[in-house]
Amino acid sequence: MSKDTDTPNLTPSNEDSKTTMTQDTVTFALAQSHFLVGDITTNAEKMRTLALQARKQGADVIIFPELALLGYPPQDLLLRPSLSGRIKSALSTLSDIEDIVMIVGYPHVDHHGTFNSAAILHNGHQKGFYHKQFLPNYGVFDERRYFDKGRNQVLFDYKGITIGLLICEDLWEKNLTAELKQQGADLIVSLNASPFELKKQDARKTMLAKRSREHKLPIIYVNAVGGQDDLVFDGGSMAVQADGTIAHEAPRFMNQLMLASLNVNTLKFNTQVKAPLSLSRESEMYQALVVGLRDYVNNSGFTGVIIGLSGGIDSALTLCIAVDALGADKVYAVMMPYEYTSKISLEDAQAQARRLNVSYTVCPIFDAVEGIRHTLAPLFNKSPADTTEENIQARARGVILMALSNKFGHLVITTGNKSELAVGYSTLYGDMAGGFDVLKDVYKTQVYDLASYRNRLEDTPVIPERVITRPPSAELRPDQKDQDSLPDYEVLDGILKLYVDEDMGYQDIIDKGFDAEVIAKIITMVDNSEYKRSQAPIGTKISHKAFGRERRYPLVNKWSVKG
Amino acid sequence: MSKDTDTPNLTPSNEDSKTTMTQDTVTFALAQSHFLVGDITTNAEKMRTLALQARKQGADVIIFPELALLGYPPQDLLLRPSLSGRIKSALSTLSDIEDIVMIVGYPHVDHHGTFNSAAILHNGHQKGFYHKQFLPNYGVFDERRYFDKGRNQVLFDYKGITIGLLICEDLWEKNLTAELKQQGADLIVSLNASPFELKKQDARKTMLAKRSREHKLPIIYVNAVGGQDDLVFDGGSMAVQADGTIAHEAPRFMNQLMLASLNVNTLKFNTQVKAPLSLSRESEMYQALVVGLRDYVNNSGFTGVIIGLSGGIDSALTLCIAVDALGADKVYAVMMPYEYTSKISLEDAQAQARRLNVSYTVCPIFDAVEGIRHTLAPLFNKSPADTTEENIQARARGVILMALSNKFGHLVITTGNKSELAVGYSTLYGDMAGGFDVLKDVYKTQVYDLASYRNRLEDTPVIPERVITRPPSAELRPDQKDQDSLPDYEVLDGILKLYVDEDMGYQDIIDKGFDAEVIAKIITMVDNSEYKRSQAPIGTKISHKAFGRERRYPLVNKWSVKG
Repeated sequence: MSKDTDTPNLTPSNEDSKTTMTQDTVTFALAQSHFLVGDITTNAEKMRTLALQARKQGADVIIFPELALLGYPPQDLLLRPSLSGRIKSALSTLSDIEDIVMIVGYPHVDHHGTFNSAAILHNGHQKGFYHKQFLPNYGVFDERRYFDKGRNQVLFDYKGITIGLLICEDLWEKNLTAELKQQGADLIVSLNASPFELKKQDARKTMLAKRSREHKLPIIYVNAVGGQDDLVFDGGSMAVQADGTIAHEAPRFMNQLMLASLNVNTLKFNTQVKAPLSLSRESEMYQALVVGLRDYVNNSGFTGVIIGLSGGIDSALTLCIAVDALGADKVYAVMMPYEYTSKISLEDAQAQARRLNVSYTVCPIFDAVEGIRHTLAPLFNKSPADTTEENIQARARGVILMALSNKFGHLVITTGNKSELAVGYSTLYGDMAGGFDVLKDVYKTQVYDLASYRNRLEDTPVIPERVITRPPSAELRPDQKDQDSLPDYEVLDGILKLYVDEDMGYQDIIDKGFDAEVIAKIITMVDNSEYKRSQAPIGTKISHKAFGRERRYPLVNKWSVKG
Repeated sequence: MSKDTDTPNLTPSNEDSKTTMTQDTVTFALAQSHFLVGDITTNAEKMRTLALQARKQGADVIIFPELALLGYPPQDLLLRPSLSGRIKSALSTLSDIEDIVMIVGYPHVDHHGTFNSAAILHNGHQKGFYHKQFLPNYGVFDERRYFDKGRNQVLFDYKGITIGLLICEDLWEKNLTAELKQQGADLIVSLNASPFELKKQDARKTMLAKRSREHKLPIIYVNAVGGQDDLVFDGGSMAVQADGTIAHEAPRFMNQLMLASLNVNTLKFNTQVKAPLSLSRESEMYQALVVGLRDYVNNSGFTGVIIGLSGGIDSALTLCIAVDALGADKVYAVMMPYEYTSKISLEDAQAQARRLNVSYTVCPIFDAVEGIRHTLAPLFNKSPADTTEENIQARARGVILMALSNKFGHLVITTGNKSELAVGYSTLYGDMAGGFDVLKDVYKTQVYDLASYRNRLEDTPVIPERVITRPPSAELRPDQKDQDSLPDYEVLDGILKLYVDEDMGYQDIIDKGFDAEVIAKIITMVDNSEYKRSQAPIGTKISHKAFGRERRYPLVNKWSVKG
């Protein structure tokens, strides 16, 4: 064992207090649970409750997710001078929990720095701690802004097995697992706050299988769950055998106290009676959107949400997600027709609202638009109509929805999709006005997939078929269609996925078979819309690269399209 | 000399090409210039022009700021796969410049990683490069998101002196200068992109004096200049003697090709005939705001700006800054009175506009507000008036300004100050609607200081005295005053500076002598306004901690005020 390795031994001196069962197995409780950012006291209370519950169910060790005591990601709360005191005081409230080892994710502050750490608590004592060594500083992660790098492996002995600790990114880097194995680990325990993105659980499974097989080591992987601003933690905690097979897998997107028992002789986990269903791509996307909205609304203390229905597919899908997230009684739909609103839009909006049983109000905006246009008339001096007049309609709707929000206290949620937001096909302070954009990271083609998916879940479709099949339109001028200004969504999304999600350039995208002129036009639209996105509401990340903290571009940006 | 040190020797073999002067002195050109983010081709052309100009003026070496070839901060442009090719191609266009050494800040991409680097170019060859070793990842900086850490010192010999290279943060860390001295450096050359904040130039001077004295080394410090989104680079490049005195100092906030000659025998710089005036605190603040707005507007391609005048001090000061930044012919002022607009507000707005000779339009918003209220009436069902009705007025103004912007192509600039933005005393999509918030990082008490400062610059005040002395009001209801909802601005700003700029907590602020109840109220207001700020326009950073990329807080944040 290297000298920079801490190895507390937690084996209780009095073995009588345990049943004979514990001589052959150690039972771990994987506390896949939602911990609120900043709410240290409540998080500690939740840990206490879960620990007592786990102990009652026979657990020897309970493992909480990464940084669970403070919530993840805490961002600049980590710079607060009072952090250290609050954390110490919270940890001390856990010191009277006996007969179960608690492995607690928390920020550790001492004279060496601030660390992303795991504390080992047992019978009133902090037996040791581990500091995360690989600090992600890419994508949505800014960990090197806050944390110092841990430099030591930490292993501890418990009931005859040696447990090595890792935190999130540590496990994705192969070296640390190898070193823990070398230093005698029988089992790896990994604390995580791994945000959802499409196919992420598959990637985790692949990595876990690889790591465990490489070193013939069982691994416990505990993930956080729940929404925090634009991120959703999707759970899916696992206990993985040394041969890479999954012994236990917790359900996705929900709290679960999952038990996994390890035979100390064979170092094999008992196996789950019934594994959770693997989720289809649409299903995991949809659930992420539901959880992201639910937790943002509830944890912000709003009593409900207001949504402007247009009769189109984006607002139809957003309405479904809102109802699934919050319940129909907390969703207020408002249809705001104007001159260019078609009859079928009115019919379809009403049909959706009725089918989902939400409050539905029709509020024609003629007077608002007329008042604004009348105010502007002397300044516009009969100049011909252009997009200005379209934006006025969108902004009149934004003002109405915000007024309803101010008056009745519900949150305005917006319905813009990723394709629109990418090319700026939306009105700032108009349809972009609101606190949460449910489909912000969902491309239009995925909106269609999700609408069909949601319809398939019930005998009677919740979204009228006509909404899905009619050509999309913003209905801001006579006979307007999205495809008057944009290429077909299949093409648009194809280019956007390469340019936005993959960071490819003009020439690379041409090489993928798209039309050069269309590519140049789309890239220019994306770059020119950076200022709009900088003022957009947040929305749930589901892709590999979501607009927002994950994609940081200058507003003044002279990067040329073609290089 | 340690083995991990690169020391190209650039002394020309044919000394005849130089005058006898060069045997005793080496002349450095400090190219304090504005380089545009992303515009690699234009930046290279600018480097060529400056190098030829410097050579003509007798310079042996020209030094450009940190990352000048790409502009700073390039953010996620650094992740573009085509970056490396574009940079190589731009560097090759500089290879035909002879008889002057060019030290070029650029991003270096190779199979070892991506580095924040300085290239040494001479007579068509790249003689060497240095990779920045200390990568700031705090405040506005995210350098570890993009760059790998350099690990080698780089020195090069030229005309008998040994020059050690450093980039920005490297110089603030004492060790690297010490190592360069130990390895034989006669002079340190430092490339910087150091953003303005109040008193930053004083801090740089203190640091430079300390570093040079510690090691008895002359230092050349070249800084960038100009605005990029929320940052302003303020120049103030310097040549510092080995005894810590300043031999040359470039003016702040403007392009300057400054020459400094070093005697190779005494290692002393010649001294400047006349040093630039040291700027007062108000003066540097004001200039930063002017440059930040000017470069954002011009580099975004807007033909002018529209500003809503209220008759109050914030819009009055913003108007002055806009006129100083862009010229009166590019500034369009609009006064949008409503029921609660006082006669003196109308008079004062008109007086300011006339005095500054800008386009001035009065556009009463009665019709717009009436239209919106009429639209809402059936839904509001005679509920009593509250802040909803105030927000409607603010939003009607936002819609009018945005419509003028859409129709005529000017940028809407907003006038909210840091105190308002901190506590959320502003309307999202109302007075917060626009592309650039000139006073975003200026506390209300500083707004008063700047208004007085600007008035003192001319015989006739540009801001009517009455605007400065009357009690501030949003004029959104009868007889409203800011101090109905907020403590006195002296108190408010006092608390905000501790809470926002210094990250202090409740108890610490009590210890500073403020009232506990007021502190709790203010902290709660700041925390609850995070969602508003997340959708606010950008504005020039002037403080130690500006809202925006420098202060990253969760929107859902359960951190309790009192802990």
